[in-house]
Amino acid sequence: MDTGMSVTDSSLETVRVDLGPRSYDILVGHGALDQLGPRLKGLLKRPRVFVLTDENVAAAHRERVELLLKASGIESDWLALVPGEKTKSFTNLDTILGWLLKGGAERSDILVALGGGVIGDIAGLSASLMKRGMSFVQVPTTLLAQVDSSVGGKTAVNSPHGKNLIGAFYQPRLVIADTELLATLPPRELRAGYAEIVKYGLINDPAFFDWLEDNGPRVVALEPDAITHAVAVSCRAKAAIVAEDETEAGVRALLNLGHTFGHALEAANEYKPDLLHGEAVAIGMALAFRFGAGQGITPKEDAVRVRKILEAGGLLAEIPGRQGGPYTAAHLVELMKQDKKASAGKVPLILARGIGQSYIHPDADLGAVEAFLKAELLES
Amino acid sequence: MDTGMSVTDSSLETVRVDLGPRSYDILVGHGALDQLGPRLKGLLKRPRVFVLTDENVAAAHRERVELLLKASGIESDWLALVPGEKTKSFTNLDTILGWLLKGGAERSDILVALGGGVIGDIAGLSASLMKRGMSFVQVPTTLLAQVDSSVGGKTAVNSPHGKNLIGAFYQPRLVIADTELLATLPPRELRAGYAEIVKYGLINDPAFFDWLEDNGPRVVALEPDAITHAVAVSCRAKAAIVAEDETEAGVRALLNLGHTFGHALEAANEYKPDLLHGEAVAIGMALAFRFGAGQGITPKEDAVRVRKILEAGGLLAEIPGRQGGPYTAAHLVELMKQDKKASAGKVPLILARGIGQSYIHPDADLGAVEAFLKAELLES
Repeated sequence: MDTGMSVTDSSLETVRVDLGPRSYDILVGHGALDQLGPRLKGLLKRPRVFVLTDENVAAAHRERVELLLKASGIESDWLALVPGEKTKSFTNLDTILGWLLKGGAERSDILVALGGGVIGDIAGLSASLMKRGMSFVQVPTTLLAQVDSSVGGKTAVNSPHGKNLIGAFYQPRLVIADTELLATLPPRELRAGYAEIVKYGLINDPAFFDWLEDNGPRVVALEPDAITHAVAVSCRAKAAIVAEDETEAGVRALLNLGHTFGHALEAANEYKPDLLHGEAVAIGMALAFRFGAGQGITPKEDAVRVRKILEAGGLLAEIPGRQGGPYTAAHLVELMKQDKKASAGKVPLILARGIGQSYIHPDADLGAVEAFLKAELLES
Repeated sequence: MDTGMSVTDSSLETVRVDLGPRSYDILVGHGALDQLGPRLKGLLKRPRVFVLTDENVAAAHRERVELLLKASGIESDWLALVPGEKTKSFTNLDTILGWLLKGGAERSDILVALGGGVIGDIAGLSASLMKRGMSFVQVPTTLLAQVDSSVGGKTAVNSPHGKNLIGAFYQPRLVIADTELLATLPPRELRAGYAEIVKYGLINDPAFFDWLEDNGPRVVALEPDAITHAVAVSCRAKAAIVAEDETEAGVRALLNLGHTFGHALEAANEYKPDLLHGEAVAIGMALAFRFGAGQGITPKEDAVRVRKILEAGGLLAEIPGRQGGPYTAAHLVELMKQDKKASAGKVPLILARGIGQSYIHPDADLGAVEAFLKAELLES
C-alpha cells in the first residue's frame, strides 16, 4: 500500500513532445516533482545541477527540491532572481551566464528552471547560449508555465522595444509539471493560467471547450483529476502543434490566439503586475472573437460563449479601465505593428470561424482593428 | 567580351554546405562580391538590409558595397564597430540588437556581416537572437574568416571567463568569399589565415598539404588561382565536416586542431593584438604535433614538416617570448581546463598519427601536457 508520500509513475500522465533528436517528455500530475531526482540522474554525466528560480519560489520550494535532489545523490547550485516580468532582461541574462561560468558549468550539465514563465524563458535562453548549448529541464510552478511557456522551446528576454524580442528556439530535455505545486499560487495567477487552457479549446478542440464549460470551476479549484486532465490536454495540444512546426513557420502561430491584442495591452501597461500575461491573453481572445464577429468571420454567439467562459473563470473579457486608463486604440495599434511576426508592415492575427476553428488571418486591416478598439474603449 | 568590371559566375567556385533545410552556398573567388546584390535580392522580402562591419572595413569597402547594393535596388542600414577581439562582447551584442530593433528589423530581413571573424561571430549570434532568428549572410573580408569562421554556423561572443563561451549554432543563408578583398589586408593577418588553411591539410588531406608545401608562398602572395584554390579547398573541407556533425557532437572537434593550445595562449596573452588567433593556432598546431611526437603518437619527421610549412608561411611554430613572457606551463594548463569541450574535468586534444591523420584524443594527460610545455618554455 502506498504511504501517500511517494507517488508512482502510474498516477502521472506522460506527454511526449515529438521533435526527432530533440524529443522529450512532459510529466503531469500531483506529485510529479518526486520524479525530478530519478529522471535527472538518467540525464546527468555528473551528480550536480544548476537551479535557477525566483525568490518567491525559492521560499516556497527550495528546501524540498534540494532534499529531493540530495535523495538522488545530486548536489545543486542555486540562483534566485527577483520575481516579476522585469527580471526577463538582457542584464539578467548576463548575470545568469556569469553565474553558470563561474560555477564551472559544462555543456553536459543541466540547468533546472524552477518557477513560472519568466524563469523558464530566461533559463532556456541562458542554457541555449551557454557554450552554445547546455541541457535544461523545466519545472514550471505556475499554471501558465505548465500549460504554455514550459513546453515548446520558445525562450526569450524582453527588450525596451518589446516583449520577447530577443530569444531562441531551444528545447528542454524534460518538463515536470507537478499540479500539486499550484496550491500555493495566488488565485489571480491560477486564473491567468486558466486563460491559456481555454485557448486550446478555442484553437482546435471544441469538445475540450465544452468540457471546460462544465468543469472549468473544478479546474480553477484544483480538483486533482480536473486540473491534471486540463494540464495534460493542454500540453498534448501544444506538443502536437510544436511537433508540426517547431520554429513557427506556419501552424504554430495559432498558439498566438489572443496574444497580438494581449501583448499590446501588456506593453501599453508597461508590463505592470496589475495586468498579468494570462489576463491580457484572456482579454485578447475575447477581443479576437468580437473583432471576428464584427468582420462577419466569427458567429456572434461564439464570441458570447468566450466571454462567458472567461468571466466564469474569474477573468476579464474586455479592456480594463477603458477610458482614462493607459490604453488608447491608436497606441495599441502602433504596438501591434511591432509584433515580431510582422512582415513587410503587415500584421497577422489569429481569428476564428467558431469555437475550435481558429486560423491564421495573414494581413488584418489595422484600420478596422483601430476602429474596433475605439468602439471597445468607448473613445469618441 | 567581358568588360573586366563584372565577373561572371563561371570564374567563381561554389561550395555547398549540405545541412538539409539549412543548406547554403559559399561563393569563392576574385570578384565574388559582385554577386552580393543579385544573390541578396533572391533572399529578401523587401529591398533593405542591415550591414554590420567594423570601422576599418567600412573605410575600405563601405562605399563600394553600398553602391553594389543600390545597383540591385537594395537600401542598407550600417553599423560599424571598433575593430578588434574586444568588440566580441555581451555589451556589443546588446548594442547590435538595439540597433536592429530600432531599425525595425523583421525575421525575414537579412543582416550582412561584412568583416573578419569578430564581426561574423557577433553578427551571427545577433541574428540568431533577433526575434528568435533573422537571416544573415557572411561576407568575410579576412583570410581567416573566409576559410574558417564564416563557414559552419558557430557564432559567439567572449566572456570575462573565456573566449566564445556565449554563443549559438546558427547558419548563414549565404557566404561570399571574395579573394580580391584580401589584397588590402596587413600581411600578418594574411599569414594568420594561412595557418587555418594548413590545418585542413593536417586534419585529413595530405595531398593538399603536399600542394601547400609547393604553393604556400603563392597562396600568401595572393596569386589568384592559388588563393582561390586554397580557399575553396578549405571551405569544402570544413563544409564536409560540418555537414557530418553540425553541433560538434563528434568529428567536428577535429577542426579544433591546434586550438586548445592556441586558445590558452590567446587567453594568457589577454587577447592582445600581438598574438592573432591564427598565429596562436599555428603555434598550437606545431605544439600538438610535437606533443604527439613526444608521446610516440606522431612521427617526429611530420612534426618537423609542420614547423617548416608554418615558418615558410611567415608564422611562428613555438611559443613567442618563451621565458619572461605572459606564458607559463602551469597557467596554460589551467586555461586548457576551461575549454568548453571539457567534460567531467577531462580535456580532449586533437592529435595526429601523421600529416592528414588527425584524431580526437578524448582525455589528454594534463600532467604530461604541463611537462611538455615546461620543456617548450625552457622552464626549470
